[in-house]
Amino acid sequence: MKLTRRYRFSASHRLHAPSLSGDDNARIYGKCNNPFGHGHDYMLEVVVRGPLNAGTGLVVDLRGLDDLVRREVIDAFDHRNLNADVPAFGEVVPTSENLAVEAGRRLRSAWQKRFGDAPALEKIRIHETRRNIFELSL
Amino acid sequence: MKLTRRYRFSASHRLHAPSLSGDDNARIYGKCNNPFGHGHDYMLEVVVRGPLNAGTGLVVDLRGLDDLVRREVIDAFDHRNLNADVPAFGEVVPTSENLAVEAGRRLRSAWQKRFGDAPALEKIRIHETRRNIFELSL
Amino acid sequence: MKLTRRYRFSASHRLHAPSLSGDDNARIYGKCNNPFGHGHDYMLEVVVRGPLNAGTGLVVDLRGLDDLVRREVIDAFDHRNLNADVPAFGEVVPTSENLAVEAGRRLRSAWQKRFGDAPALEKIRIHETRRNIFELSL
Amino acid sequence: MKLTRRYRFSASHRLHAPSLSGDDNARIYGKCNNPFGHGHDYMLEVVVRGPLNAGTGLVVDLRGLDDLVRREVIDAFDHRNLNADVPAFGEVVPTSENLAVEAGRRLRSAWQKRFGDAPALEKIRIHETRRNIFELSL
Amino acid sequence: MKLTRRYRFSASHRLHAPSLSGDDNARIYGKCNNPFGHGHDYMLEVVVRGPLNAGTGLVVDLRGLDDLVRREVIDAFDHRNLNADVPAFGEVVPTSENLAVEAGRRLRSAWQKRFGDAPALEKIRIHETRRNIFELSL
Amino acid sequence: MKLTRRYRFSASHRLHAPSLSGDDNARIYGKCNNPFGHGHDYMLEVVVRGPLNAGTGLVVDLRGLDDLVRREVIDAFDHRNLNADVPAFGEVVPTSENLAVEAGRRLRSAWQKRFGDAPALEKIRIHETRRNIFELSL
Repeated sequence: MKLTRRYRFSASHRLHAPSLSGDDNARIYGKCNNPFGHGHDYMLEVVVRGPLNAGTGLVVDLRGLDDLVRREVIDAFDHRNLNADVPAFGEVVPTSENLAVEAGRRLRSAWQKRFGDAPALEKIRIHETRRNIFELSL
Repeated sequence: MKLTRRYRFSASHRLHAPSLSGDDNARIYGKCNNPFGHGHDYMLEVVVRGPLNAGTGLVVDLRGLDDLVRREVIDAFDHRNLNADVPAFGEVVPTSENLAVEAGRRLRSAWQKRFGDAPALEKIRIHETRRNIFELSL
Repeated sequence: MKLTRRYRFSASHRLHAPSLSGDDNARIYGKCNNPFGHGHDYMLEVVVRGPLNAGTGLVVDLRGLDDLVRREVIDAFDHRNLNADVPAFGEVVPTSENLAVEAGRRLRSAWQKRFGDAPALEKIRIHETRRNIFELSL
Repeated sequence: MKLTRRYRFSASHRLHAPSLSGDDNARIYGKCNNPFGHGHDYMLEVVVRGPLNAGTGLVVDLRGLDDLVRREVIDAFDHRNLNADVPAFGEVVPTSENLAVEAGRRLRSAWQKRFGDAPALEKIRIHETRRNIFELSL
Repeated sequence: MKLTRRYRFSASHRLHAPSLSGDDNARIYGKCNNPFGHGHDYMLEVVVRGPLNAGTGLVVDLRGLDDLVRREVIDAFDHRNLNADVPAFGEVVPTSENLAVEAGRRLRSAWQKRFGDAPALEKIRIHETRRNIFELSL
Repeated sequence: MKLTRRYRFSASHRLHAPSLSGDDNARIYGKCNNPFGHGHDYMLEVVVRGPLNAGTGLVVDLRGLDDLVRREVIDAFDHRNLNADVPAFGEVVPTSENLAVEAGRRLRSAWQKRFGDAPALEKIRIHETRRNIFELSL
């Protein structure tokens, strides 16, 4: 049994790779390279997989999952400027791909202590807009 | 080729495990343990997989699929109180996880007679709310 | 300037008018008359209208609005059985029309004390399902 | 006959009123007062009203409407930091209410020259998130 | 009290005004003038307004409304080619504006016989795509 | 890392298999067999899979992906009559299953030249309506 749980957060970012020239940045990122940034309403999907608890009929303690996801990811990203407020994006470009990598790193490192091996953290998805969805297996 | 077909049904339920104390029920299920129950508009997704019929260009007879899903699942759950109206939930807590298990059991037992081996019934998903999606491989 | 703010709640109900015969109830309400009830995920829209505060650029204090709506309506309806848990529906059939009337009555009676005349409470809408939307001017 | 046409844009902002103290800003705007800003995917709805052209069966030249809205509003707001990139928000707090006022001002001032009196520009709406919708009559 | 009820239908059409030249048709309707037509999934919203029936708590007999709307509009438009299958669009261009006019004409002419003066048929809306919504007061 | 990118197109079609009798066509395709056709607003999802470019933080050049998908699929299907405008559907019934097969064939044949082996084209999905989703692994 798998559960997909959805969370939302609003953040701003600017896409600009320090290793590239100004022209390359403008060409690669287009409007997303505008100097003062812009923003999105992101959706994070967390997919967990595990056996059913026969007594409760639940696959995961939802309150525990919410606590972990909020503490590790949502509080750090929501209503933030990703470039300025999240240390991991000091050098790394805050594309949605890297956002998924960073969210996955945070969830994985806290998962074992809270949930052990069941349920397992299977994958996450970041919906950047209605048209772009990024998925990372964990 | 896979087809995902979506169905909707509205039902009420109360989450209460007879094997647990009143305190544990309140702690585990929160507002879902309220004594008189509450309700949701559920979405059921049925995923079938099979080869294309070269003549018709179809992977499954949709009318046949609809008849089977309605007779086995939708008619039994829609506009019902799951605890009181569905025998399987006499002892079993009607969480969405158990709802998926029961819907899967009903579909599997009728599938072979109607469709044989092609198309195959691959998995089902229950969307409980916009935020919680349960998936069961069959 | 008008603001529409959306709230969600899940509830169960049974449509049955005590003044009508069993046959009439079955004919008028159809599946909604099933004896043990069923449920929905409702959306409540609250529409307020007022001038802009020149200093803050806001038409209403959102936190104040949320507090009032949650205390007066959401806490009373969410994860409840409307027939059994809401006194107003002891004799009155909990159709979405009457749900709107009751929600409007509750909001109106608390509004003046909290907001005075600005912003004004203009109307509310109850989305029962994706297909039925009820609107009441206040 | 009325037409509502929808446009989308992504932008970042910080809510901070220069006339208020730091404490008041934090209290009034909450997380929206975070120093480095955050962002949203906004939806703008433009409502026009007019008679049907009997020959074409159209109420407005859609291409002309799109050109005007993009040039006056979308190009100025999309993928921008509203505080830093839009002169009108140098002193004025870029709440969605003020965003609607500024968008309305821009559309009105260009409307007469392009469309004259028919169709008329009736109102606009800004959907800030799925929960907050602001409407301004023009 | 107002009720908005939603219906869906799928249809194809070609926009081509016989009174205009080929160049004008191509310029005005763009891709919608392609000779063999194209299609949409339309949504029709019917808005009715009336007093609450104190006994039933309903503003309109939904089954009666559905019967009327399906017989007068949905059956005539759904899974049809509007130009070829609907006589009203023999000479008239099947824009969504004219679709609203024709649907309104059909509903109005059948309304009085079925519902009399209460509830009243207030307006209809045609959602052509996610971006274009047409509204006609009746 | 996987990216799902969404595209929309509007098209009309008629489902009629030349190898079957008129009665069989009517029985199998129902209203979709109506002689003058009907239409839908389709959504195409393209799923690509590949490693992250460490410098840019991107899994695929979105502009390149959009150019390829538009040139190979969207321009050919959008605002078209699939039976009359797309040569592949001269003999083949334009069901959504066959639409997926044809879109997949077009994307695969252009993919290698533009993207080589990374990212890989993993699968596509056609959303025919809100209820039917077809998926083809590539």
